[in-house]
Amino acid sequence: MKKAGILGGGQLGRMLLQAAANYPVETYVMEKDADCPAAHLCHHFTKGDITSFEDVYQFGKALDAITIEIESVNLEALEKLEAEGVKVYPTPAALKIIKNKIRQKEFYRHHEIPTSDFVITHNLETLNEHLHLLPAVHKLSEGGYDGKGVQVINDSTAIPLGFNAPAVLEKQVNIKKEISLILAVSNTAEIKMYAPVDMVFDQRLNLLSHQLSPAELPEKVEWKAEAIAIKLIKALNSPGIFAVEMFVDQNDNVLVNETAPRVHNSGHHSIEACYSSQFDMLWRIMLNYPLGNTDNILPAAIVNLIGEEGNSGPAVYTGLEEVLKMDNVFVHIYGKKETKPGRKMGHVTIISKEKQDLLYKANLIKRLMKVEAEK
Amino acid sequence: MKKAGILGGGQLGRMLLQAAANYPVETYVMEKDADCPAAHLCHHFTKGDITSFEDVYQFGKALDAITIEIESVNLEALEKLEAEGVKVYPTPAALKIIKNKIRQKEFYRHHEIPTSDFVITHNLETLNEHLHLLPAVHKLSEGGYDGKGVQVINDSTAIPLGFNAPAVLEKQVNIKKEISLILAVSNTAEIKMYAPVDMVFDQRLNLLSHQLSPAELPEKVEWKAEAIAIKLIKALNSPGIFAVEMFVDQNDNVLVNETAPRVHNSGHHSIEACYSSQFDMLWRIMLNYPLGNTDNILPAAIVNLIGEEGNSGPAVYTGLEEVLKMDNVFVHIYGKKETKPGRKMGHVTIISKEKQDLLYKANLIKRLMKVEAEK
Repeated sequence: MKKAGILGGGQLGRMLLQAAANYPVETYVMEKDADCPAAHLCHHFTKGDITSFEDVYQFGKALDAITIEIESVNLEALEKLEAEGVKVYPTPAALKIIKNKIRQKEFYRHHEIPTSDFVITHNLETLNEHLHLLPAVHKLSEGGYDGKGVQVINDSTAIPLGFNAPAVLEKQVNIKKEISLILAVSNTAEIKMYAPVDMVFDQRLNLLSHQLSPAELPEKVEWKAEAIAIKLIKALNSPGIFAVEMFVDQNDNVLVNETAPRVHNSGHHSIEACYSSQFDMLWRIMLNYPLGNTDNILPAAIVNLIGEEGNSGPAVYTGLEEVLKMDNVFVHIYGKKETKPGRKMGHVTIISKEKQDLLYKANLIKRLMKVEAEK
Repeated sequence: MKKAGILGGGQLGRMLLQAAANYPVETYVMEKDADCPAAHLCHHFTKGDITSFEDVYQFGKALDAITIEIESVNLEALEKLEAEGVKVYPTPAALKIIKNKIRQKEFYRHHEIPTSDFVITHNLETLNEHLHLLPAVHKLSEGGYDGKGVQVINDSTAIPLGFNAPAVLEKQVNIKKEISLILAVSNTAEIKMYAPVDMVFDQRLNLLSHQLSPAELPEKVEWKAEAIAIKLIKALNSPGIFAVEMFVDQNDNVLVNETAPRVHNSGHHSIEACYSSQFDMLWRIMLNYPLGNTDNILPAAIVNLIGEEGNSGPAVYTGLEEVLKMDNVFVHIYGKKETKPGRKMGHVTIISKEKQDLLYKANLIKRLMKVEAEK
């Protein structure tokens, strides 16, 4: 049996390992927290720091293949492992581009991949030279995640909120909608694409409300998005699973927001809604099997279960029973012991032929279900 | 989090644990072989003997709920655990009836559940008193599994092949087809039923060829089968998952062959083909959540991957790549290190609106895929 490792033991690792059990593969996970969602679902768990060269190298050197759950891993160790013959998904070269927001944006510009206008800033002072880009978003080059390391700068008075460190200042896009495309790339550079996903935001809360697959897009916008995603993925030149998040602006221009070189939240519906899920697909790639079928069996929606504001502590899933009574929903609780405000604690997938049914249930689930701390 | 244990660590445990990772539950497995298919997918693995009172009792006493993967477990320990407040699925009382073929047949007779004519035999000599039942099938009362402990006795010359131990002699049924019904029973005795499954046999090899869900049955036969299964399950009076295997004879009589008080091979298609799989459903029951939806999303077929005759040793999956190229199939390899003749090594599920597509691919998979020993 091939030996395959995952750096990081959160929900992505958990769902990867659920899918791994369909294949002959010996699984390894490394993560600091021995109680993390994926720790008990692998053959071999290693307590370690995924940002440490030594930990990643020692973990990886006996493996046939290794993948990541999060971008903030030790790149140099992965480069050394690759040089020594371990297959790394994504390649360290692709990860190097993506894990740094400056390099990622420069990569888009170099390859003429449409993306929002931007400048690179090295400290707060330089922001004053780029007032013409405002309103803009300031993004730290490294270490941002789940909204951290991102600051909206609407006008010059907000400049002090920016980062006094290497960062990208991106002109705000007049967004009509946000979409995500998940792509699978085999070891022989064959590409398969999942149907685009609508990431629907709650304007009032400025939070992701739910996701819909396939996205509702005019044919021409869909073609544009697919062409851009394929161009991007070909330029990245790495096997693995990739999520390309894009903005569609008011003029139906498609602009790449950012790329994740790994399984992604916007692809979770694929577990039940697609023939080969993004998790199944990554194992096919890592085990060098043929790519699977990315078609939807049925249209789907996802609602993320996020830790409630003002709640920290052992998690309680209010409304879970009501949701489990619905006849076409699939609940995924990630098994995190503690909830925190904004923490991803689970998701619910709905599948249905009827778009109205998807939207009705997505809204109902959002109203019914809450992840709170034990009182 | 509730603590739930499984006695046995084979493929049923493996698939149960894949499903468990959608819920907040702490999982425990006990099995002799620390390399078994389920050992690495639980929070806590205990090396132990599921037939030993002491091992089962010690394993179970700290749990909230416990279930079984196989009938041959220590019943007395489960009875003690139940008396001490551990929830046991199925109840020890139901398991006691089912795990002994004599008690099982007497239970059917007592509850007027249609089943083949039979007598109880305590040794080989008594067989001669029941020649009128021949051709018949002789079944050991305890310990039979996967065809072991079962002997066809066509005429009196075959009597010496029978069992010189407590057994059941069952008159052979003139079988038109074999079907299986999977039922879920909640803690409050609510019952949900999956669509009947056709167990299609290869007459030439006398082996299960493939399974089809929903089964092709005249409406009246389906109603009869469902009524019998519900009567049986109500009489068993236990929460859990149950598979009722039935014969349909040439006159469209429906006769119960046997019942399994657990997740069952004939329900594996439910993972991809149903909204709530049999594995998902057992967790809902054990965690006291509402029952799920047993409807098929699409019709399905299953092909079992069985160790080839004359092959023992480290398993090789010939034809796996070809099967993985098919666009609506799902491969499940159970991760058993060694193949043996007749050993269940995996299964492949096909889902499709078109029955012809199901049958065509089932036959293709049977031709393409073989589980052999490393040369």
